[in-house]
Amino acid sequence: MNKTIETILDHRSIRSFQDKPLTREQIETIITTAQAASTSSFIQAYSIIGVSDQNKKDQLAEVVGNQPYVAKNGHFLVFCADLNRHAQIAEMENIDVIPSIESTEKFMVSVIDAALAAQNAAIAAESMGLGICYIGGIRNNLEAVQSLLKTPDYVVPLFGMAIGYPAKVNDKKPRLPLEHVYMENEYQQDTATFIKQLEDYNQVISAYYRERTDGKREDTWTEQIGQMLEKKSRMYMKDFVQNRKMDLR
Amino acid sequence: MNKTIETILDHRSIRSFQDKPLTREQIETIITTAQAASTSSFIQAYSIIGVSDQNKKDQLAEVVGNQPYVAKNGHFLVFCADLNRHAQIAEMENIDVIPSIESTEKFMVSVIDAALAAQNAAIAAESMGLGICYIGGIRNNLEAVQSLLKTPDYVVPLFGMAIGYPAKVNDKKPRLPLEHVYMENEYQQDTATFIKQLEDYNQVISAYYRERTDGKREDTWTEQIGQMLEKKSRMYMKDFVQNRKMDLR
Repeated sequence: MNKTIETILDHRSIRSFQDKPLTREQIETIITTAQAASTSSFIQAYSIIGVSDQNKKDQLAEVVGNQPYVAKNGHFLVFCADLNRHAQIAEMENIDVIPSIESTEKFMVSVIDAALAAQNAAIAAESMGLGICYIGGIRNNLEAVQSLLKTPDYVVPLFGMAIGYPAKVNDKKPRLPLEHVYMENEYQQDTATFIKQLEDYNQVISAYYRERTDGKREDTWTEQIGQMLEKKSRMYMKDFVQNRKMDLR
Repeated sequence: MNKTIETILDHRSIRSFQDKPLTREQIETIITTAQAASTSSFIQAYSIIGVSDQNKKDQLAEVVGNQPYVAKNGHFLVFCADLNRHAQIAEMENIDVIPSIESTEKFMVSVIDAALAAQNAAIAAESMGLGICYIGGIRNNLEAVQSLLKTPDYVVPLFGMAIGYPAKVNDKKPRLPLEHVYMENEYQQDTATFIKQLEDYNQVISAYYRERTDGKREDTWTEQIGQMLEKKSRMYMKDFVQNRKMDLR
């Protein structure tokens, strides 16, 4: 196993950082690696907003709820799906790109582009001895995030990333069995096998929590995820995205 | 610069592979690294379908158009946004998850989850001396891909990834200037600066093509992307995704 694979497999979300800001050089290295990711047909449909202003970080921490590491970290990035520069292209080249950039296809392209870039940034940061945590919580209130970061139409902030020197390192949570996530030549057609895999995995997750909480917690994966999904979070998202003129047609 | 960052920065898409299949061990390493990526609230909302059946690979190559490396490579993966296992959870836990998994929010979560996993796979493969190429072209005809891979409702194949031993290595294309993609504390508010950055970048890209084609090609980035966007590709995507019961509300 090489060093890069070791770094990737050693990933865990870091939720407590030392009080030590990243240098400009570290930030530029991380952004440059993000930009090196593949991008659909060279479209480069994302932007990254670095938040260094402590007041803004505090406000973001409020938006996401109880996550102090959004305010306290070495640096904070917000990854955005971004077709705004492509809207500008229309004026520069005097052509109509609106049906295209308002399409579901291009929304997906911009979300995928942003995520590929982000994961490069995550791996690069971790390879430098830093820790990271993705912050989906910024989607709790994208109106607030948008007004804080002044993002225009054709831009949707997708998630944050807190980066910094780890103060506390958590355990890795076991993932779904490989044979459940990875299928050969066609999707798993046998529902009984599919459910059996989830049940076996439930035992693994239950044991994981039991061990780490002296038996206080022993919920299974399907219980945990089921409860989360039953709650219906962020149901305003369709309106928000479409008000930003994305995923419209 | 460490080895991992070198690997990330050295990325280029490989479109010609040696006739040498990946071993099962290599494939499992790649999938395991994919699974190590962050996943929103532990939801693990993606699946990966490995296509080894040469007949299916040939058919996929036909779907995407003129891309022979979809049929000829060391292995081919299809990354899918997948909330099907979460639909199963509803039955296992006897709860209602439908409004949640049919939401735009959860569609975004599943697309982001799949992309983060894919980029881990890409970096891992490259660190092993393999090359990769993302294949967005599978979205040219997702009905065909779906019937080939037998994916159920709540699953949307997003992109393929051809992996293998490189037969031919291309140059890296220069990315947008860092200061255009990376902004501090708020989105770039000055349109003139924004457009000036694109114009400067146009010079870089034009020179890049000129050098590599003996002056035969010298299109700018905004020309190239503008022409692509003017064409309106894959406008069926919204219907396809919603027919799969995702991004509905």
